Amino acid sequence: MTGKKYVLEKAKSAKEASRRMTTIGTKVKNQGLEAMADALIDNMDFILSANRRDIENGKEKGLSQYMLDRLLLNEKRINEMADGLRTVASLRDPIGEAVKMWKTENNLQIGQIRVPLGVIGMIYESRPNVTVDAAALCIKAGNSVILRGGSEAINSNTALAEVIKKAALDNGLPKGCIEFIEVTDREAVNEMMGLNGYIDVLIPRGGAGLINTVVKNATVPVIETGVGNCHIFIDEGADLKMAEDIVINGKTQRPGVCNAVETILIHKNIASQILPKIAENLTSKGVELRGCQAAKEILKDIKLALEEDWATEYLDFILAIKVVDSIDEAIDHIFKYGTKHSEAIVTNDYSKAQRFLKEIDASAVYVNASTRFTDGSQFGFGAEIGISTQKLHARGPMGLEELTTIKYIIYGEGQIRE
Amino acid sequence: MTGKKYVLEKAKSAKEASRRMTTIGTKVKNQGLEAMADALIDNMDFILSANRRDIENGKEKGLSQYMLDRLLLNEKRINEMADGLRTVASLRDPIGEAVKMWKTENNLQIGQIRVPLGVIGMIYESRPNVTVDAAALCIKAGNSVILRGGSEAINSNTALAEVIKKAALDNGLPKGCIEFIEVTDREAVNEMMGLNGYIDVLIPRGGAGLINTVVKNATVPVIETGVGNCHIFIDEGADLKMAEDIVINGKTQRPGVCNAVETILIHKNIASQILPKIAENLTSKGVELRGCQAAKEILKDIKLALEEDWATEYLDFILAIKVVDSIDEAIDHIFKYGTKHSEAIVTNDYSKAQRFLKEIDASAVYVNASTRFTDGSQFGFGAEIGISTQKLHARGPMGLEELTTIKYIIYGEGQIRE
Repeated sequence: MTGKKYVLEKAKSAKEASRRMTTIGTKVKNQGLEAMADALIDNMDFILSANRRDIENGKEKGLSQYMLDRLLLNEKRINEMADGLRTVASLRDPIGEAVKMWKTENNLQIGQIRVPLGVIGMIYESRPNVTVDAAALCIKAGNSVILRGGSEAINSNTALAEVIKKAALDNGLPKGCIEFIEVTDREAVNEMMGLNGYIDVLIPRGGAGLINTVVKNATVPVIETGVGNCHIFIDEGADLKMAEDIVINGKTQRPGVCNAVETILIHKNIASQILPKIAENLTSKGVELRGCQAAKEILKDIKLALEEDWATEYLDFILAIKVVDSIDEAIDHIFKYGTKHSEAIVTNDYSKAQRFLKEIDASAVYVNASTRFTDGSQFGFGAEIGISTQKLHARGPMGLEELTTIKYIIYGEGQIRE
Repeated sequence: MTGKKYVLEKAKSAKEASRRMTTIGTKVKNQGLEAMADALIDNMDFILSANRRDIENGKEKGLSQYMLDRLLLNEKRINEMADGLRTVASLRDPIGEAVKMWKTENNLQIGQIRVPLGVIGMIYESRPNVTVDAAALCIKAGNSVILRGGSEAINSNTALAEVIKKAALDNGLPKGCIEFIEVTDREAVNEMMGLNGYIDVLIPRGGAGLINTVVKNATVPVIETGVGNCHIFIDEGADLKMAEDIVINGKTQRPGVCNAVETILIHKNIASQILPKIAENLTSKGVELRGCQAAKEILKDIKLALEEDWATEYLDFILAIKVVDSIDEAIDHIFKYGTKHSEAIVTNDYSKAQRFLKEIDASAVYVNASTRFTDGSQFGFGAEIGISTQKLHARGPMGLEELTTIKYIIYGEGQIRE
């Protein structure tokens, strides 16, 4: 079967299953998820041996240690996936909720009801746990899912998909509710991007290259995830210890993720007071600093930041520093270089806090807290399928609700329109 | 200025204005809308004379009477546009509403707050009132709008845009909040479709050709509107008089719109009883009937429906009729041919009503009411910018809320992530 026909068959199967999914109760979905968790534990060796092939291939291909670590599965990580499935099973089922219900003047009773999106296409890279996490969330929200992972994890993903799919089907979930694309060539992705009428939404997860390709080329609706060029603005009069803690946390707690801070903006009236402390703390943790002229005058031996530094999501132990004249300059800088992900102000000034919350256009805007909290689990969603950086449909961390849509149901008594 | 640069300048201006719009209060927006209404009345002659040029051009080009009527403005229609502006001014401002607000275990206070989408691009055809209606709704929801109407209405649209824009700017709304594209070549549309980073969402309104072009080619997120191949299923045991009234209303009250019914499905056990009455009533109103073999056996002299009839949105005085064995066959037919717009069942059977509401995948699903109610004004939204037939972001009639997004605002006390 050619790649194109192969993907279409998978999509048809997923679409057919999505019809069955709308009539399946919460209990069956939860039993399926629990069975998938059990199956991961029961098939630990099978999964680990598949993963070893990926790791060997990755070493041959010369993947970095960082990439190999993302790829690696072990007993602990498989247990975490199983725990994740059980957590999703324990979450409240979003389907069937009446978001609103009202009566019109002519006595129509109209309900806005939460229903599944239908078929969700996931296109993702490297980390094999996405195979399991995405399937769990999609199914709990009543959807079918088509999974297309990256080539470097193909053996791990295939094994994981096989195990959870069998458990799902053996426990009452419909055939086709989890479809896994075993071909890793580009043609499969191209085909998925054009399957309007079969796939209701595509969610790309991975590097900027993947996400841009999908956003630019898909005719199926896409939820854009990812890029976070996040800022922390330290206002004059801020609690300096608090500011320092938040900056250190935002940069070093896990620098490779989208909600880590990339540039700090510091009010000129406190720059010479706070910058040396922050710099000392950060450099002791191995962070390279790049500053504007004013920052460099205070810190001397740091690199001068270039225009491109302000626009870069380092995802690394590098931080850009800019001294600003006012909150206006800080807001303008974020407007110009921000990616609408997560932005924070550290301040003790009520009006400035409110201005920042109101004027910054981002999925999450913080006062006196680390940007690292933009995360479904930290927000209390229980799980997350990605972080939306677009404004349509979902914004910020996406949990179960974001994998649903609504429909209007209308109870009438024979009403016709005048 | 070339088309490309011209559109980019408009988009930059709209984006700049969208920043100002977030800080403008409800009172200023409402005063602007009221002033726009006054300006339409005050400039009646100016608008009507521009419209006369479009009508003359249309006649020269040989536009149909129907198209000319859609294009026509008169005192009554301009008054209606002004009334529409005042209605939008009277609606509750959706911006700033806390959709949810909660506290996490570590005492972060997280609010999900309704905010403007930013810059909305409208690409539309023929009816000039869209210029005014769309601008009103976008502004009330705190957005900037870029309007690009069809070539046949260019003089009317230009005049309307000029009048409302001046009134808006003279009354405190920011420069750029209404941008009108005066060029009607295709290049302007192409440019708008690729303006990621400037336009947050595109809403095409018009024929299937326009909508498909935008859905297929835009890299900016799109809300798909439009096509409605709507069905009414008449179950055995239905109130036959109610069924007849709903079918007549669904087909004839206004056949040229997307929520009009195109195919009726009739349970075989009541077909011979109800079909003759419905057929007599419809043909007396000039409706052409096309039926399946079983329907033709009852009604004799109607045309035989072809496969393509089931898939056609006639938007005309034509109705397809199919006799079905069961609700299952009806649901399967709608799954195969429906466009997920509006679907109705007429029944007195509780279980079938609930099954239909649950299993039909459409933006609006009715029991015992006409499909013609799928409309923002009928739903009580006060106004409508279109009817979404996609599942992402908005589904069904779109009012003010659908022109907003959310952002998370987080009040902290120095929290960092462990």
